[in-house]
Amino acid sequence: MKLHAYGRSSASFRVRIALNLKGLSYETVSHDLTRDEQRDSHYLSVNPQGLLPALEDDGAVLTQSLAIIEYIDAKKPEPPLLPREQLARARVRALAQLIAADTHPLVTKRVAQRLRDDCGQDEQAVQRWRLHWLHVSFRAFETHLATSAEDGRFCHGGSPTIADIALVPQAVVAEQLGISLNAYPLISRIVEGCLQLPAFQDAHPDNLGRGEA
Amino acid sequence: MKLHAYGRSSASFRVRIALNLKGLSYETVSHDLTRDEQRDSHYLSVNPQGLLPALEDDGAVLTQSLAIIEYIDAKKPEPPLLPREQLARARVRALAQLIAADTHPLVTKRVAQRLRDDCGQDEQAVQRWRLHWLHVSFRAFETHLATSAEDGRFCHGGSPTIADIALVPQAVVAEQLGISLNAYPLISRIVEGCLQLPAFQDAHPDNLGRGEA
Repeated sequence: MKLHAYGRSSASFRVRIALNLKGLSYETVSHDLTRDEQRDSHYLSVNPQGLLPALEDDGAVLTQSLAIIEYIDAKKPEPPLLPREQLARARVRALAQLIAADTHPLVTKRVAQRLRDDCGQDEQAVQRWRLHWLHVSFRAFETHLATSAEDGRFCHGGSPTIADIALVPQAVVAEQLGISLNAYPLISRIVEGCLQLPAFQDAHPDNLGRGEA
Repeated sequence: MKLHAYGRSSASFRVRIALNLKGLSYETVSHDLTRDEQRDSHYLSVNPQGLLPALEDDGAVLTQSLAIIEYIDAKKPEPPLLPREQLARARVRALAQLIAADTHPLVTKRVAQRLRDDCGQDEQAVQRWRLHWLHVSFRAFETHLATSAEDGRFCHGGSPTIADIALVPQAVVAEQLGISLNAYPLISRIVEGCLQLPAFQDAHPDNLGRGEA
């Protein structure tokens, strides 16, 4: 398997965690987002959307991190990244999508660029925009956790699921932007617990080897 | 089943299509987004994120349209809304997420409000923002379709999947905003084909009965 990724892309971070949890080995092709390498014609021929990550496997190119992770989960079922029961599956998918659909797309580099270039926003306004959406989502995520009996050491029970896989990279980005997770005690506890696991640690942008970052 | 929805919410439109394709009956509780009814305290106690749709079933509240649709698909497997083969499942999930994660969240009412209220953007700029992201995504979606041998009458083969369920509501919104789908011949053909089916027609905001809209 070949993973097209970038160290600091939080959607790439998600897929690395999933691959690590499954113990699957893969080759990384790094595309530097800060140099817009994901817009290079060679990569556009792999993924016409020019977004990261993409996973090459079995002659196919898979895109969209959550779709890739569900594929990985089906390819190697142990340990499972979703609970078995259908309402529980819906709950962890919803938590993952709260991050992947309602949060992350609003705080990406391409959105910040558009705010600067077309909407005339300065760095302070772009930062305010990012913090606004991160806080809106973390409040919702925290309330989801607080109003359910299902969270344990992780978002759902005693082992990591796609909900944790989506949450941790977004929490790491939020902290880098200056957000303290202290206001979100359940999120904070779960993120801390996850980052004690090698699968999460090894996927963290700060811990990547040369060529992967 | 009780669907909390709003006629013109395109994520609600997705869930209505899925329920109709499965032939499942449901009660609609309408929350008027134009009056911010989704922020009412009663609804916030159902869905703390204050977003639509949410589905009540079996004593649980499900959120996030794609998670809800996968739940519906598992609850009533026929007709299937995802292909059986894993690479194919990853493809239709990725197409659905291209809309649900990379497109729709950028063109919602709450984002438009933020652009106006905090970024000082006028209606013309908000409209330009919406058209920009819709065109970026439709170009990518069209290229995905054009570079795959998998599309047929629908995004994937001969029956509707979650990819079509995500695409059609976004295409309807785009046309309402003045985008012509002529520039996207594959999308245009698929949307037209879907809208000939009663499941899609009956879910269309223009065709809802009183109390559902």
